Amino acid sequence: MQRLRRLIADRRARRADAAFIIEGPQLVDEAVAAGVEFEAQFIPVDRPESSIGGAGPVHLLSPGVFERVAPTEQPRPPVAVARATEHDARAILQHAAFIVALEAIADPGNLGTIIRSAEAAGADGVVLTPGSVDPHNPKVVRAAAGSLFRIPVLEASLSDVHDGGLTLWGTTSHSEQSPQAYDRADLTGRVAVVLGTEAHGLSADAVGYIDRWLTIPHAGPAESLNVAMAGTVLAFEVRRQRAAEL
Amino acid sequence: MQRLRRLIADRRARRADAAFIIEGPQLVDEAVAAGVEFEAQFIPVDRPESSIGGAGPVHLLSPGVFERVAPTEQPRPPVAVARATEHDARAILQHAAFIVALEAIADPGNLGTIIRSAEAAGADGVVLTPGSVDPHNPKVVRAAAGSLFRIPVLEASLSDVHDGGLTLWGTTSHSEQSPQAYDRADLTGRVAVVLGTEAHGLSADAVGYIDRWLTIPHAGPAESLNVAMAGTVLAFEVRRQRAAEL
Repeated sequence: MQRLRRLIADRRARRADAAFIIEGPQLVDEAVAAGVEFEAQFIPVDRPESSIGGAGPVHLLSPGVFERVAPTEQPRPPVAVARATEHDARAILQHAAFIVALEAIADPGNLGTIIRSAEAAGADGVVLTPGSVDPHNPKVVRAAAGSLFRIPVLEASLSDVHDGGLTLWGTTSHSEQSPQAYDRADLTGRVAVVLGTEAHGLSADAVGYIDRWLTIPHAGPAESLNVAMAGTVLAFEVRRQRAAEL
Repeated sequence: MQRLRRLIADRRARRADAAFIIEGPQLVDEAVAAGVEFEAQFIPVDRPESSIGGAGPVHLLSPGVFERVAPTEQPRPPVAVARATEHDARAILQHAAFIVALEAIADPGNLGTIIRSAEAAGADGVVLTPGSVDPHNPKVVRAAAGSLFRIPVLEASLSDVHDGGLTLWGTTSHSEQSPQAYDRADLTGRVAVVLGTEAHGLSADAVGYIDRWLTIPHAGPAESLNVAMAGTVLAFEVRRQRAAEL
């Protein structure tokens, strides 16, 4: 029980154990279907039908205990301990045609949405630079709605992305960089779309790795698009340009 | 105090009073800038500097009371009572060139995101059909991040949209309707993009008003795009096609 709570609350525990928590039948089903490996699943003793085949050995908990160890207030069983998939980031980046890279993204919901968008748009991976929220944070796992199990989410640097031979397109809302409108930029090659935080854009360190700049022209105030919306629009523009090429 | 709590929790009270709650300096500032009218603002007595000019007469509350009447757990002052803007839906629809219409949308966060996207993409309004979440629900107000104050959000029917002379493009993930890929559909005329709920798509009633169908081709499982992501992608495609025409 202690371990479950640590895996829910503590990033270092998740890192040390290479394990994380998946809650609820739909997400656990999707993880099983995606080939995620499981260590154990926990269900309330009065809901024996709630275990899921392929999600590891079943542990029965008294209902009060089940609620206390789960990551949400009204948890749906099972709560499962899954093994984090280890990705060889450099190898993936050497062969990737389309990456979404996020510098120091902090909001779990936004990260989850971008992981969904990246999968749906056919990206080969999502790169998180150091300082980002943990992709195995339970809120990210929930917001990613299964996409986390199907697309590699890599903790890597923009230097690694550059070394992979991808063209890094930085996103900006400032005119200083003379960005191209995103739909006029040629995104058909091997590209990484790089997004910064909403508040500050890309850091000076990141800027050093950017090859070209793009922007999303829009109505309304500058902050009207959050990073998840911008990432969704850009990921689908990459997909659109590639589909149009065929 | 009773009234504040009712306006936070009770849609009928908001409707009866044509009033709603805006919390926090940034949102209240944006509402003032957008010309929203205010009845009153509430701040803790120990934070007299937190009142905002233009947000109505200031009422001081003891700190414990302030926290209790606010819509979030760690409220930032002021908490303001704003007057709902009355829109003439039919008049707006007669002249609109681009509408985003949502059938019975339930999730406040998704609605807020779509209101932001619609504003950023230059839509003339967002239509909510009967049965949708209240756009003045505090969670929608927060998620819309100020866009709610700048773009008309209309409670109307698809029949009203049709009567406005717009072409209704229904979104679907099913092939039965023989939809066009969204980026090959001609969205440059007077268009309403119509989205259903994530779980069920558009109702049979709604389908009767749809002129044409479009779909968002994507990788991964069918449900990988939620309604907010789909709405964002479609709104920006409408904008892209219009910009390309100029």
